Parts: sequence; C-alpha cells; structure tokens
Amino acid sequence: MSPPGYRDAVDLTHQSSLSLTVAEAGERETLRRLLVHMPMGKSLLGPGDDAAVISAPDERVVISTDTMIEGADFNLDWSTPEHLGRKAVASNLADIAAMGARPTGLVIALAVPRDTTVEFVERLANGFAIGLERLAPATCGVVGGDLATSPVVTIAVTVFGSMDGLAPVLRSGARPGDVVAVAGDLGRAAAGLRLLFAQGNAVPAVFDDVAADGLIAAQLAPEPPLYAGMLAAKAGASAMMDLSDGPLLDATRMAEASGVTLEFDDFAVAADLDYLVPALERALGLVGRQARELAQRLVLGGGEDHSLLATFPPNRDLPEPFRQVGRVLERGEASVLVSGKPAKPEGWDPYVGMQ
Amino acid sequence: MSPPGYRDAVDLTHQSSLSLTVAEAGERETLRRLLVHMPMGKSLLGPGDDAAVISAPDERVVISTDTMIEGADFNLDWSTPEHLGRKAVASNLADIAAMGARPTGLVIALAVPRDTTVEFVERLANGFAIGLERLAPATCGVVGGDLATSPVVTIAVTVFGSMDGLAPVLRSGARPGDVVAVAGDLGRAAAGLRLLFAQGNAVPAVFDDVAADGLIAAQLAPEPPLYAGMLAAKAGASAMMDLSDGPLLDATRMAEASGVTLEFDDFAVAADLDYLVPALERALGLVGRQARELAQRLVLGGGEDHSLLATFPPNRDLPEPFRQVGRVLERGEASVLVSGKPAKPEGWDPYVGMQ
Repeated sequence: MSPPGYRDAVDLTHQSSLSLTVAEAGERETLRRLLVHMPMGKSLLGPGDDAAVISAPDERVVISTDTMIEGADFNLDWSTPEHLGRKAVASNLADIAAMGARPTGLVIALAVPRDTTVEFVERLANGFAIGLERLAPATCGVVGGDLATSPVVTIAVTVFGSMDGLAPVLRSGARPGDVVAVAGDLGRAAAGLRLLFAQGNAVPAVFDDVAADGLIAAQLAPEPPLYAGMLAAKAGASAMMDLSDGPLLDATRMAEASGVTLEFDDFAVAADLDYLVPALERALGLVGRQARELAQRLVLGGGEDHSLLATFPPNRDLPEPFRQVGRVLERGEASVLVSGKPAKPEGWDPYVGMQ
Repeated sequence: MSPPGYRDAVDLTHQSSLSLTVAEAGERETLRRLLVHMPMGKSLLGPGDDAAVISAPDERVVISTDTMIEGADFNLDWSTPEHLGRKAVASNLADIAAMGARPTGLVIALAVPRDTTVEFVERLANGFAIGLERLAPATCGVVGGDLATSPVVTIAVTVFGSMDGLAPVLRSGARPGDVVAVAGDLGRAAAGLRLLFAQGNAVPAVFDDVAADGLIAAQLAPEPPLYAGMLAAKAGASAMMDLSDGPLLDATRMAEASGVTLEFDDFAVAADLDYLVPALERALGLVGRQARELAQRLVLGGGEDHSLLATFPPNRDLPEPFRQVGRVLERGEASVLVSGKPAKPEGWDPYVGMQ
C-alpha cells in the first residue's frame, strides 16, 4: 500500500466505519481498517515499503491487468461492495488461468469518492477475500496497492502468476484436428445482466427463482473453474483464453491468432441453453420460442462468464471440468462456424458498446 | 493490452486522430494508434495474449503500483498529455528505484472519457516513451495494459523491477551513526505547484523566468536521478525511500520504521533554497523574507520531487549524485530534527489534503 498520510490527534478508534467517510478518516485510518479485511499474500517483502517483492520460482512472471470502473463496468444499485471485490478477483485471475499459470499475488489500485464510507472500502476488501478463497490457491493474496480519490469507484488490479516451468498456453496454438473445449458455464453472466436491466434499479435477486438468481449471481460475482487452466496446461492444451467478451468473438480472436477455423457444435451447448431457457421464460415473461432465441444468442454471444476456452490435440482425455464443444478445422472463409454455418461475432467494445 | 473490440466496415484509416474520439474509433482502432507511440518493453511474451510474461532473473520480482487521477492528482489545464505520461513514469519508477532495483517493465491501465480524442491518448503514450527514455534503462518498457472509460482521466500503472541478486533496501534499515543523503532536488515540484495555483488556469510556463519554468517543469514532469537507486544498493545503503509526500513526513516514516531519529542540517539544503528563493520572489512578487520562509517550508515539506532519501553506513563514499544532508541518531523524543530542533512533519493525505 502507498505510505499512509500523517494525521494528528483526532481519535477515531471508536467511531463506526458506517458513519465515517474516507475523507473524515484520512488515508492512514482508512488503510488501517481496510487491511484488517484484505487477504494479504505471502510475499518475500510485504506492504509498508516503497514496493513489494514476490517470488518467481522459474525466473518468469505472468502479468495481467484489468480495471473495473463504476458506470462503465458496474452499477452500485446492483452490485454490493463484496460483489465488486469478487468480480475483480474473477476477471483478473481468469487472465492468469488462461495462460495455464498458477496465481501468485495481486496489487490493487483503488479510488473512491471522498464521501465513500470506510465500511464500503472494508466490504470491498472482504469481497477480495471471498473471491480469493473461492478461486485461488491459499498462497495467493494481495501484496500491494494504492488508495486514491476519484468521482467514481475505480478498481484497477494487476495480477501475477507462475508457470512453474511449463510453457504458457497462447491463443495462437490451435491446430486443425484439435478438440475445442470449454471449462465453465456459457451465457449465464450475460443473461444475468438482461435480468438486472429488466428489473431496473431495484435491489438485486428479487425474481424468487433459483435459476434466475443463479444468472444474476453469475453476472455480479462469477465463479468460473479457474483451477482448470493449470490442469489444461499440464494436459498439453494447444491454445487457451478466457471468455470475457463472448464465445464467438473470443473464438474469432483465437482462430485468427492461430490461422485456423473453430467450429462449435450447437448440440454441445444444449445444457447451457437448458439452464437459460426456463429462467428467461419465468423471469422475463417470455414465451418458449422467444426465450430460446434469446438464450441461443446469449450462450454463444454473451460475455463476462470468464469460463476457459481451450483446444487440445485429438484423442486426449480432457481434464475436468473441460467438455468438448467443437473442433479445429483448416482455415476456411469464416473464422468461426456453428454447426457448419459461418457465425458473425457479436461482443462488447468498451468505447462503442454492444455491436 | 486487453483484447480489442470487433468493429465492422467503417474505414477510419485516413481520419485524423485529432478529430476522432475514442468512442468513434472504438477500442481496436484506438489501441492500434496508441501502440504506435507506446514504448513497448522486451518481454518473454508481449501484449496480445491474455497476459504478458516477463523475466525475473534472480527468481524475485519487485512490484509497485501508483495511480494518477484527474482532479485529485492533476489538472488538464496545466498538464499536457505528455506531462502526464512522463509524471506517471517518474512516480512509479521512483518506487522501484527506492528499493535499489532495476526497472524491468510496466503495465498501464488507462481510462478516459468517451469524448477524449484519440490524439490525447497517443500523446499520453508519447509521454510514457519520453519518460522511459529519460529515466529507465533501454530494456524497460510497457508489457501490457488495459483500456477503459471513466468520467475522469485515470492512469493506473504497475511497475516491475529486478534486484539482480542484491538485497532490497528497506525503510527500516537506518542505524545510528549512518549518514543521511539525498539524490535529486528538494522543494521544486511543490514550488512549481504554488506557481501554477498562483497563475490560475492559464497555459503553463508564462512566467518567462528560467528558474520559475524549472519549478513548473519539476511539478508537471519531474526527472529525478532514479539510476542512483541502483548505485545506492550496490554501495551498501542501509535504508532508502523516494520523497513523494515531503522530506520531513517521509523521513518520519523512515525514522519510525528504523527505530531511530533522523537529523537534517539546514545548511545542507542551502543550495535548494538558493534556487527557490529568487524564483519565488520574481514569479510571486514576494519580498526576500517571505520568499525565504516559503522556500524553507517547501524544501523540507514539499512533496512530489521523487528524489531519493537514503542512509549509508559512516565513512563510505556516497555514489553520485547523493549528497549528505544529515545524520542518523539514536531514537530520541522526536522522529526528525532539523539542526537540532524537533520538526513537525507536514505532508499530503489524498483524502484530507495538506495538513
């Protein structure tokens, strides 16, 4: 963490974090309370100095950075601070998992408006703790950070990993004849976002429907099976990436990087459709065919599941929970096919919106 | 960089970056133009995949993160985009230098309003290039990043370094009898900020005075002698930190971490005063004594110079450009003395302001 500010005299020890803003508490006291909740990592040199030092056992470090900003990336009417911490962990660790690496630590640059309560910041730290407990090995934690002010809540995370001697699994390694596989759900996070928009600014999870609540949870605090990334690297995956912007769009990128065509079998995603269709019918009042069409669009077009898309050489046992969803073909006219037909990628551009 | 968004058909090739907003260009085209200017680092695996991979030759990585946010940390009436890139490089590399490490790479999470021109983003990248060229070895560059939108320009940088087998120089290692030394200027960045506030929202550097322009430059785009950090580590410095929040406040932190008292000699900072006093007289119209009192306050109280404060065992040759400014004493009542008198630390708290 950055050096705490110096604050005189005022004894805040007994004041509740609920009634104290970060501007009233100052950086030193905010940091002190925040660090009680923050899941600190085991580093060679922890926070408190100008920099942290972490171990890189095979003389390499895998690095990725990802930012979540209020308005563009989340809505405080929908997300609790715990959700934000959990989602920041998931979206960042997914990039490390997608290389086949083991996560080793992260740094968090956090900026909040001056009238934010200290409790909000503590709950955000708690969300990081929950996310790391669910998604990362016990040795991975926070090794540094920075506190700042901004008109909007801003969470910039940089995450580190180790390949432990293995080669990183790139996007460019898919070869004709390989199997296309996915670990994790498809379309749930995007369906959850539809439900949240349909619901407006009410408190989340009012559908009173287990499946609908599951979709909203997948959007607000996804828990993709990220451990599968390391298993894929060990099992000899030829290419891998995380599904952040939508399977068709992300698969297009993998196909172009690898110089191949990827084909999805629509029957292979039937289980994803079967989860979405009845939940969309009940929660949005859609009739069967409308719900099915929307679900089909979301399963292959929706982003933010942070499931893993990988290719494996033929005739390998896929590591759990990877399941085959298609195959790699020689490069054809289209980058991606769905059951033989060219698929137009849909996805998300942060500057332009859905297109 | 994060995966570019997919954008159809519209040919933007011939449209000037000056008349194109990031929302019009989309992430893919913004990123393409940005990367032309960005000083990319030599990594084992560069941008374009889910994560970057960099080398950690001694199985350790030094890591620090620092954020600059419009409003709280800079004002676009005063700073050009090049200034912002240069200052982000200086403030981040200073934390790596303060450990005695060699910088090896950085990742940049950048968020801008949707109506920002692509030219602004290109010039920001150019500022990173200038800053790295001036302050870092040729092998240090950008290895990854993230593009997002925010109502305010937000620059979150995480920087990496290697100790190359040496021990990191901590804040806690100062011992009685050690020499206190500084590499770099004192008070110039804070004096520059005074001049900018005095000047209001006019274009910077209108004082037509070489020294005043130097103060403003020190505030907007500091160039501390950061290579001195590695030299200090090799010369056996016992403690080190960068001066970001003001020498008295930062020295208080070092004194408390080390369990000692640090004493500054005011005659040792006479050269810093001699630079500031005439510039403040001319630029602010202050008479001699007022200018001297303000300069004294700024030299030991002003932040953002990012000079290096270090302690060395006695009777060592100080590596250039370190100069002795005081000595380490047994822990006394005060953390910091100036010529024998207890000094009250002044400095900056981002949530509370100057105190």
